[in-house]
Amino acid sequence: MSSTWELQAQKARDILDDSIPKQWLLPAHQLPSPEEKNVEDFARKSGLLSEKELAITDLSATALVREMGAGRLKAEDVVVAFLKRSVLGHQLLNFATEFLADRAIARAKELDDYFERTGKLVGPLHGVPISVKEHIGIKGLTCNAGYVAWVNDIAEEDALLLQCLEKAGAVFHVRTNQPQSLMHLCCSNNLTGTTLNPYNRTLSPGGSSGGEGASTGFKCAPLGVGTDIGGSIRAPAAFCGSYGFRPTALRNPMTGAKAPEPGQEAIRGVIGPLASQSVEDLDLFQRAVIDQEPWDIETSLAPVPWKRVSPKKDITIGIMWDDGCVRPHPPVTRALKHTKAKLQAAGIKVVDWEPYKHDHGWDIISAMYFPDGTASQRTLITQTNEPTLPLTAWSFAYSSPTPLTIHESWSLNVQRDTYRDEYHALMKSRGVDFILCPAYVGVAAVLYESHYWNYTAIWNILDLPAAVFPSGLRVEKELDGLGGDGGFVPRSETEETEWKKYTGPERYEGAPVAVQLVGKHFRDEETLAAAGLVNDEGEGEGVQHE
Amino acid sequence: MSSTWELQAQKARDILDDSIPKQWLLPAHQLPSPEEKNVEDFARKSGLLSEKELAITDLSATALVREMGAGRLKAEDVVVAFLKRSVLGHQLLNFATEFLADRAIARAKELDDYFERTGKLVGPLHGVPISVKEHIGIKGLTCNAGYVAWVNDIAEEDALLLQCLEKAGAVFHVRTNQPQSLMHLCCSNNLTGTTLNPYNRTLSPGGSSGGEGASTGFKCAPLGVGTDIGGSIRAPAAFCGSYGFRPTALRNPMTGAKAPEPGQEAIRGVIGPLASQSVEDLDLFQRAVIDQEPWDIETSLAPVPWKRVSPKKDITIGIMWDDGCVRPHPPVTRALKHTKAKLQAAGIKVVDWEPYKHDHGWDIISAMYFPDGTASQRTLITQTNEPTLPLTAWSFAYSSPTPLTIHESWSLNVQRDTYRDEYHALMKSRGVDFILCPAYVGVAAVLYESHYWNYTAIWNILDLPAAVFPSGLRVEKELDGLGGDGGFVPRSETEETEWKKYTGPERYEGAPVAVQLVGKHFRDEETLAAAGLVNDEGEGEGVQHE
Repeated sequence: MSSTWELQAQKARDILDDSIPKQWLLPAHQLPSPEEKNVEDFARKSGLLSEKELAITDLSATALVREMGAGRLKAEDVVVAFLKRSVLGHQLLNFATEFLADRAIARAKELDDYFERTGKLVGPLHGVPISVKEHIGIKGLTCNAGYVAWVNDIAEEDALLLQCLEKAGAVFHVRTNQPQSLMHLCCSNNLTGTTLNPYNRTLSPGGSSGGEGASTGFKCAPLGVGTDIGGSIRAPAAFCGSYGFRPTALRNPMTGAKAPEPGQEAIRGVIGPLASQSVEDLDLFQRAVIDQEPWDIETSLAPVPWKRVSPKKDITIGIMWDDGCVRPHPPVTRALKHTKAKLQAAGIKVVDWEPYKHDHGWDIISAMYFPDGTASQRTLITQTNEPTLPLTAWSFAYSSPTPLTIHESWSLNVQRDTYRDEYHALMKSRGVDFILCPAYVGVAAVLYESHYWNYTAIWNILDLPAAVFPSGLRVEKELDGLGGDGGFVPRSETEETEWKKYTGPERYEGAPVAVQLVGKHFRDEETLAAAGLVNDEGEGEGVQHE
Repeated sequence: MSSTWELQAQKARDILDDSIPKQWLLPAHQLPSPEEKNVEDFARKSGLLSEKELAITDLSATALVREMGAGRLKAEDVVVAFLKRSVLGHQLLNFATEFLADRAIARAKELDDYFERTGKLVGPLHGVPISVKEHIGIKGLTCNAGYVAWVNDIAEEDALLLQCLEKAGAVFHVRTNQPQSLMHLCCSNNLTGTTLNPYNRTLSPGGSSGGEGASTGFKCAPLGVGTDIGGSIRAPAAFCGSYGFRPTALRNPMTGAKAPEPGQEAIRGVIGPLASQSVEDLDLFQRAVIDQEPWDIETSLAPVPWKRVSPKKDITIGIMWDDGCVRPHPPVTRALKHTKAKLQAAGIKVVDWEPYKHDHGWDIISAMYFPDGTASQRTLITQTNEPTLPLTAWSFAYSSPTPLTIHESWSLNVQRDTYRDEYHALMKSRGVDFILCPAYVGVAAVLYESHYWNYTAIWNILDLPAAVFPSGLRVEKELDGLGGDGGFVPRSETEETEWKKYTGPERYEGAPVAVQLVGKHFRDEETLAAAGLVNDEGEGEGVQHE
C-alpha cells in the first residue's frame, strides 16, 4: 500500500524535475556544502548570474516597472534573471514545485513587443516576475495543495487573482512549495519535501507560504503570492527577511485557491503578497489587483476601491511587547525597542499596547480551523495513506475530535464578532491607530518547530490588515544572549515550550528580525502606508534590509 | 399546562394595553363593522384627526423634515398626529405591540427646544416618527421576537440601527407586530394576535414585518423599520401599498435585532426601511444611517459609504414576467405591462428578463433557513408549549428533519456563491442594469395564505438590493378577470396551489398592486434612484399612489 502514495507523490517530483530549466542548473560540486547554513550571498558567489542580472534581481517591482517603462530594461531579460536565480535558489532551498520558464519567457517577449509597438506598459505590473504558491490554481496545471491525493488534479481556470495580476502585466515564472494540509507555519510535505531558509538552512522558511518566503527571501522574485489563515504569508516573510501583507478578508479574490474546506467561511483565508524589497511593492500588488474591481466577478468581495494614501506622521502606534500568553524571544524584543527608538526620534507618537484577551482569540480561531473535526483533511490523507507529518498532526490536534454542531459553530461566530467589535472599540478608546508587535514568538522557527501561531493568527480572527517587514536587525551573538532572562518563569506549558527553544542566539544565527504592524479593519491602505513609514524610519542609520 | 403559555402571552397584551394612549381611543361603536373590508379612508371619516393632523400624516418624511426645518411644523405636533393615527390604525388593524407615546412626545419636545434654541435641525430625520418592528430591541423594553418564551426578555441596548436613526433625529412612537417565528409572509402570533391589511381586512398585511406594512400603509408613520430574510420587508410594503427596501447585506447594522439563530450567517437577514409615501424616503433613511459609518462599531459591516446618485434614464431594465416556477396573478402581470408602457413612453430601454434557475435559488435558501433542523425555534416553542401556528409549521417544513452537517452547510455556501456570481455575470452579459418583477405572486395574500416566497426570497439568496413600490394600479373587477387564462395548466403543484388562490379580482378587492425593482449587488443607491424614476414615470396620468 505504501508504494501507492509514493508512486503518486513521484508524479509531483516528475512535474518539478521536468520543468527545471536544465541549462541553468549548477553542478552539485559547485553548490555549497549542506553544512553551510547561510546562502544569502550565493547568487553572487555562484557566478551563474551576470552583474546585470544580479542588479536586476536586486530591484523592487516598482523599480523594475519604472526601468521597463523607460526602455532601460526588457521584460525578457528581467524574467531570465529571476528564472536563473530561482533555479539556483531551488537547488539551495528546495522551494519550487514547478518552473514555468518557457511560458514566462514567451509572455515576457509579448510584453516587450507590446512596449516596442506602442511605447506603453500593459499595466502597473508590466514584466514583473511573480512566484505563486502551488495551491493557487493555474489553468491546465496540477494543483495539489500539499496533498498527495490531489496530485492529478488539474485547475480548470487561472485563479481570479492571477488573472488580475496577469492583466496588470505580471509574468508567472515559478510555483512554490507549501506544507501538507497548508495548516502550519513550516513548509514540508510528502510530495516535494522540505523548503529551507536562505539565511540559515537549519531554520524553516516559515509556512504555509514557505516557498514564497524562500522565493522572495532569496530574491527569486520581487513579488510572490501567498495565502494566510493564521500567519501563512507573514511568518514566511518574517522568517526570510521579506515583506508580507495579510489584507482584510473580502478584498482580494479567492476564487481558484484550492483547499480542503470549500464553503467554510467562519474564518476566511486570504490571499496576498510577499515582496523581496519593499512595503511599496506590497501596495503596488494590492493596487494592481483591486483597481480591477474583482468584486464585479467574485461578488462576495466588498466593493471597496484601493485608496491612494500618503504616510502620515500624525499617528499613534501602540507597541505590544508581549501578547500576554507567550513571551517573545530576546532578539524580537530588541527589534521592537529599536523600532520604538527610531519612531520616537522621528517624532511619531508611541505608546504601549496592552493585549486584549489574545488567549480568547486563539480559543475561537483554533476551534474554527477544523469545524468538521479534520474529516476533510483526514479523508484526503487516507485516500493515499500518505504519512501524516508531525506538524500536520500537531495542528489537527487543535480540532475537536468530532465535528462542531451547527449551534457550536454559530456560537463561535457570535464570539468572533463580539471580540472584533470589542477590540476595535478598544483601539478607538485608547487612541491607537496601529499596533506594532512581534511577527512571531522568535525570529524564525528551527525546521519542524513552528508551533505557536498567535502573534499572527490573532489578527486573522480579528480580521485586521497586518504587514510584516524587516526591522533592519539580525540576531546578534553579543546582544541577544539570555542574560538576566535565564531565570524567566513561564506562565504556561506553551510558553515554556516556546521559551526553551531559545537556548541562545547561536541557534538562530544569521536570521533577520522582523516586526509586524497591524491596522484597523479595512484600513489596508493606511496600514501599508504606516508600515512603509516605520520601515523607512528604520533606515538611514546603517540598517540593512536584506 | 396550556394555561402557562396563555399567562405568559397575556403579559405581551398587558404591555400593549397599558401603553395605548387611551385619550385617543375611538369608542367601539364608532369603529367600522368588522365586515367593512377597506378602512384606508377611515382616518378622515373618524373625525379623530384634525385637518392639520390629516395633512401632516399625508406628508413624506422628506417633506416633514423640510417643514420642520422651515419652522412651519413642530415635532410635537407631528408626533401627536401620527400617534393619533396609530391608535386608530391599531383599533382597525391590530398592528401595534407597544405604544411609546410619552417618550415620543418628550423627545419631540426636546427636538423642538433644540430647533428653537439653535435654529437648526438635529439631523436628517429631525422629528420624523418611525415605527419599529418589535424584535428590533429598544433598551429597557421587552423583546419577544414573536415567541411567548421571550415575553420577559428585556433589551439591554437600543439596536445599533435605532441608535443611528435617533442620532439623526428620529422619534420612535410605536412598536409593531410580527408573526410567530418571524418566518412567514403573514403576521400572526400567540401574543398579540393577527394584523390586518388596511386596504382589505380579509387580506394579510404581509410579513414578517406585517405590523410595519399596516403602519406605513395606514400612514401611522412616514417611515418604519423592518427586517427581511425572504421578503419580510417587501411583502408587507407590497401588500399594503407602501414602499419597502431590502438593502444589500452588511450595509445596515444588525446588532440588537433579536432572532433565534444568532451566529447563523449563511443567509443573512437584513434590516431596512418601509415608507408610506415615497422611494425618496427610503433613500433618506439609508443615507441617515450609513452616513454615520456604523461599520466603525459593528465591524462586520462593509465600509461602503452611501453614495449620492441621481436617477439616470440611460439604463436598461429587464422585465421578469414570471420566475419560471409560479405564474403571477393577472393584476400583477397587468401592473408590469402598465409599467413597461410608461417606461417605454419615457424613453427608457426595456427588455425581457429570462429568469435563471430560480428553483435552484429556492433550494439553496430554503435549506439555509433552518440549518439546525428548526431546533432553535422548536426549543423556544416547547418552552411554553404555545401552539405552533399553521404558517409556522408550514415554513418549518422547509427544514430538513435533522440538522445540516458541517459539510452540507459548506456545500450550500459554495452553491450560493456560485449562483450569485453566475447571476451577476448574466446581468452583465445581457446588458441589464435592473430587473423589474413581481413583488409577490399576487397583489397580496388572503390572511394565512402567504405560501410562495420566491419572488422576494430569490433576491435574498442573490443578495441583491430590491425596492418594492406601488405600480399605481389596483385590482380591478373589469380588468383582472381570469379571461383566457381560465384554462392555464400549472407546471407544478406549488404553481397550481398559488394559481387556484386567484379565483378572480373579488377575492383581492381594493388591493393596490406593487412591483419590485432589483439592482446589482451593493448598487443600493442606484437601485433606489432607478426605483424612484420608475415610480415617477408611473405618475402624472391619474394614477393614485395610496
